[in-house]
Amino acid sequence: MLKLVAFDADDTLWHNERLFLDVQARFLELVGRHTDSDIIEQRLQETEIANLGHYGYGVKSFTLSMIESAVDLTGGRITGDEIAEILHLGREMLLAPVDLLDGAREVVDGLSRTHDLMLITKGDLLDQETKVARSGLGDFFSHVEVVSRKDRATYEAVLTAHGVRPPEFAMIGNSLRSDVLPVAEMGGHAIFIPYETTWEHEHVSAEQLGGVPFRTAETIRDVPPLLSSI
Amino acid sequence: MLKLVAFDADDTLWHNERLFLDVQARFLELVGRHTDSDIIEQRLQETEIANLGHYGYGVKSFTLSMIESAVDLTGGRITGDEIAEILHLGREMLLAPVDLLDGAREVVDGLSRTHDLMLITKGDLLDQETKVARSGLGDFFSHVEVVSRKDRATYEAVLTAHGVRPPEFAMIGNSLRSDVLPVAEMGGHAIFIPYETTWEHEHVSAEQLGGVPFRTAETIRDVPPLLSSI
Repeated sequence: MLKLVAFDADDTLWHNERLFLDVQARFLELVGRHTDSDIIEQRLQETEIANLGHYGYGVKSFTLSMIESAVDLTGGRITGDEIAEILHLGREMLLAPVDLLDGAREVVDGLSRTHDLMLITKGDLLDQETKVARSGLGDFFSHVEVVSRKDRATYEAVLTAHGVRPPEFAMIGNSLRSDVLPVAEMGGHAIFIPYETTWEHEHVSAEQLGGVPFRTAETIRDVPPLLSSI
Repeated sequence: MLKLVAFDADDTLWHNERLFLDVQARFLELVGRHTDSDIIEQRLQETEIANLGHYGYGVKSFTLSMIESAVDLTGGRITGDEIAEILHLGREMLLAPVDLLDGAREVVDGLSRTHDLMLITKGDLLDQETKVARSGLGDFFSHVEVVSRKDRATYEAVLTAHGVRPPEFAMIGNSLRSDVLPVAEMGGHAIFIPYETTWEHEHVSAEQLGGVPFRTAETIRDVPPLLSSI
């Protein structure tokens, strides 16, 4: 019997990667004024990954990584006003409307009537909290956990804190690496809902997935019947 | 009877404001190369406060506010290499050794044998978590809560989640605004330990404090006897 059902937030309940890709495109244009380098995007992604250990996930980290990459890629020729443009791009992301995925509201509303629901998300604490509030979905969740990483230890700590055993727990999300693998490995139920795009960092290899038991939902509307079958 | 004793972290268990002031002094020097403005410090602080609603607390927010202020104060003349210097200042803060306050370790160690201890702190999620780990005090705390603000609603939510009533709760910290007032107002026990300096934003007026019951400890070593008297 399931005692706790948890959802990822970004790109599981609302669109997020679109926003990053849009801002990234404008960043490429901005830096492209100074250099015809064809590795702007690659360098930005390398900087993001290299900074994860210092900065963690989220919009502020991404903004700092954009600034660092811009200085780096332009050999310091980026101007103060262009740095201000990059700050503005980051600010826009923080203020962007929360655009729910089709069906998210109905499914979460419905499940909240029969299950104890939790949101487990990485990112900036304040940003994720305000997105939950702006999403209008906050009241459907008994608990919201913003975490600095989603590995097995994180999930085990969450379950311990709530007195739930892995077989009583289901996690639903769009990242095989963060939502599916660690949960399946500890004996919980994982439901994967692929999103239209996946951040490079969240990719996992076929070998890592070999033999790992999880279910796949085409859209969030398929989640309730999958949960019923657990 | 106390069921839960919570400590603030920055400038209660380890030095933090010193680090901000040191970095701020180097920021003033850096921006001072471009302008003899006497409002650099004031503008930085205004920018920090104005950005709290977007960015929240912590080193990443402070770094972004330094960059914004630098562009602003220099009319865009700040160079790319100087922006990289500011990023480096922020990175240094994230990597700085955790410098415990005198007595913090003994007191926390001792209290952990008789009380359920919690850490409640504002700031960047990952930064605060790694500071707890580096402090060597992590094992003394049953729970670590990184929160986006410390108001009455935050404390009420924490207490509810742990099944603790306000009279069974004590909070210890160096901020009247964040650690003392909201806890005293909801009927909890608050112990104030003044730190050598207080961030402007955390100041409260004498009127706000009028009639609010709380205890003051000269140093953290005075906390155990104060708790025993509750």
